[in-house]
Amino acid sequence: MIEISPDSDFSIHNIPFGIYSIDGGQKHVAIAYGDYILDCYLLSKLGLFDSIDIDGEVFAKPFLNDFIGLGKSVTNRVRSEIQDFLMDDKHVIWKSQNQFLFPRNNVILHLPIQIGDYTDFYSSESHARNVGMMFRDPNNALLPNWKHLPVAYHGRASSIFVSGTNFKRPHGQIKGPDDELPRFAATQKLDFELEMAAVIGKKSDWQVPISTEEAMDHVFGYVLFNDWSARDIQQWETMPLGPFLGKNFFSSISPWVVTSEALEPFKIKSKSQDPTPLPYLQEKEGFQFDIDLNVHFQTKEGQSKLICRSNFSNLYWTVAQQIAHHTVNGCNLNVGDLLASGTISGDKEGSFGSLLEITWSGKNPILFEDGITRTFVEDGDTIIFEGFGKKADKRIGFGNLINTVLQ
Amino acid sequence: MIEISPDSDFSIHNIPFGIYSIDGGQKHVAIAYGDYILDCYLLSKLGLFDSIDIDGEVFAKPFLNDFIGLGKSVTNRVRSEIQDFLMDDKHVIWKSQNQFLFPRNNVILHLPIQIGDYTDFYSSESHARNVGMMFRDPNNALLPNWKHLPVAYHGRASSIFVSGTNFKRPHGQIKGPDDELPRFAATQKLDFELEMAAVIGKKSDWQVPISTEEAMDHVFGYVLFNDWSARDIQQWETMPLGPFLGKNFFSSISPWVVTSEALEPFKIKSKSQDPTPLPYLQEKEGFQFDIDLNVHFQTKEGQSKLICRSNFSNLYWTVAQQIAHHTVNGCNLNVGDLLASGTISGDKEGSFGSLLEITWSGKNPILFEDGITRTFVEDGDTIIFEGFGKKADKRIGFGNLINTVLQ
Repeated sequence: MIEISPDSDFSIHNIPFGIYSIDGGQKHVAIAYGDYILDCYLLSKLGLFDSIDIDGEVFAKPFLNDFIGLGKSVTNRVRSEIQDFLMDDKHVIWKSQNQFLFPRNNVILHLPIQIGDYTDFYSSESHARNVGMMFRDPNNALLPNWKHLPVAYHGRASSIFVSGTNFKRPHGQIKGPDDELPRFAATQKLDFELEMAAVIGKKSDWQVPISTEEAMDHVFGYVLFNDWSARDIQQWETMPLGPFLGKNFFSSISPWVVTSEALEPFKIKSKSQDPTPLPYLQEKEGFQFDIDLNVHFQTKEGQSKLICRSNFSNLYWTVAQQIAHHTVNGCNLNVGDLLASGTISGDKEGSFGSLLEITWSGKNPILFEDGITRTFVEDGDTIIFEGFGKKADKRIGFGNLINTVLQ
Repeated sequence: MIEISPDSDFSIHNIPFGIYSIDGGQKHVAIAYGDYILDCYLLSKLGLFDSIDIDGEVFAKPFLNDFIGLGKSVTNRVRSEIQDFLMDDKHVIWKSQNQFLFPRNNVILHLPIQIGDYTDFYSSESHARNVGMMFRDPNNALLPNWKHLPVAYHGRASSIFVSGTNFKRPHGQIKGPDDELPRFAATQKLDFELEMAAVIGKKSDWQVPISTEEAMDHVFGYVLFNDWSARDIQQWETMPLGPFLGKNFFSSISPWVVTSEALEPFKIKSKSQDPTPLPYLQEKEGFQFDIDLNVHFQTKEGQSKLICRSNFSNLYWTVAQQIAHHTVNGCNLNVGDLLASGTISGDKEGSFGSLLEITWSGKNPILFEDGITRTFVEDGDTIIFEGFGKKADKRIGFGNLINTVLQ
């Protein structure tokens, strides 16, 4: 039996799924437990899932998609078999412990999902208001459609990578308000966006909308999502068709997909919506997740600061509403699609989920020790997201999502 | 030897690639020739490609991606072996003709590409001007960024289907200018958009931009593309992040991917650009393709009318510029990505590539015989795109892209 710290993100109540490899070996499905990972393919070989109708080869794949695609009836049983096993220190399989159990620090974690289509919503009212106040009209910060539908756009799937991927500052066209012409330059306004993303686990048929009641059956689980943004590139390109190169240079997700079932204890009733949305967006019991989300900024000089304390529940629209909206016109979802929340900002200072909002577009720099300041992310800086729920003795977390801008 | 009509889209100079099946059998790679298709997998079994270093199993796949991914050095040799064979009526393989040759009408054509990411550009100046005149300012129809960069947005890949797919009119939120509140309804402004799409045949690395000079090496070929649109849904949702449900209910492509090489004879110098774009968008010899594009409207009542005569060359930005722009920030392209042109409208009436423009947002209905009129597409109507180049005795076409709105 493995002892794990009570403040581990990966408690017995969690059991999130990911993809790992070790020493250049094959990629396999794994789960995280404390400071360890357990290789599900090798557990399967040892017979742990013999009571389940599952082909163990599904764990010897480079992505979770095939496993997830088996459906909740199978994936939930796999998860509970693992939980039972972890709590049974006399289980015969422990004798082969060195075959399937590895310290997490010794393995490489990979992008867990082969992402089909990636959609980014814009579902935090505070974020939408903040952006509207900065770039449009402080007195009419929300656009007329915002409270009637969960605004969203399609993003780029190919440039989504796993936590730990570092990247070069992107270049692009930039034109300031006083510039006569655009110039080609490295972005001067490199920003993060604190988001969560739902991983679709059950496909929907084309031309068959998903109702709000059915919607959560289509979500396998969630990851932390950083929608890296170049604000200056974005601003010049964005009219009239929305963000493109200001976003698609890089996005990142946390390596462990935390299942919807693990997040059950953290469900809280969603806020009431005024105006009442159209019937296809109405829910009997809408909910959000009470998951704390923190952002740490580490400067290249070595200072570190917690610059945002937000919460997954700081959203106006629910995931069920997002899915119902996304499919109401017949658009089909596939296993492995990502639906990101949009920047999750709370309504108070200190809870804003982007530097654009935290520094109010650069007007209020963040102060670190030794007189170091930041308005946007500089080369060599590191941004770390963390997310976790706590309730009584249960703690369930996502691990860190961390990226450094290369110097 | 097969006799084919001189006005066939699929002449000896074309040899486009697609995916077919027959009688519920396995999907294979095929080429189109006259009224026939040739099964490349079976040709490979018969030894036609023995002089090429290629595993014939690449032709027994449900999508062209693996074949395309072999690179031009291989795919061009396959194409030329087929051309040589078709012109050699004494070739021994003709003896097995009934094994690999099928009338095109007897087979099912499938979506040829597993589409990774789909990007839609907005590269026709006339289209952008027409839309700007209708919805913004007739005197400042083009937005300030339009002549500095090829404006684009990410679209939905999951709902792109092959020609012949019919579909139900989508529902969504609609709010007219005089409506107090949005309502949920079927779109009343169902429209097509006449586009071409480039199929990416060579991946690019993340964070490594593709120059305009290298860009065309990354294009395997082209298809006709119909970016079906619901104008009323689009209008209400589109601010501030661009089109979403107004587009992602359905898009369609023609079944045969016509290679870049087949289109060589139709290259024409691209128009000069003023202002001169930034260096990363400049080209030594920019070109467009002189490919006629026609749209036929068939009403449910049975009338038919040619409602648009446009040309692939009616674009301000070239495909090379689109690719250079798309990747200049480090965004990576994958084999099977689609880059659509945006609606291809000419500058004269009769050459507009959408009903929005043809009827000027419904103000000028199209008149058919017997007093039938249309402003947008009605249930039971059919839209047919055709595209072909003609030069001396060479004719190369794309076949039809046809969809009917279900009643």
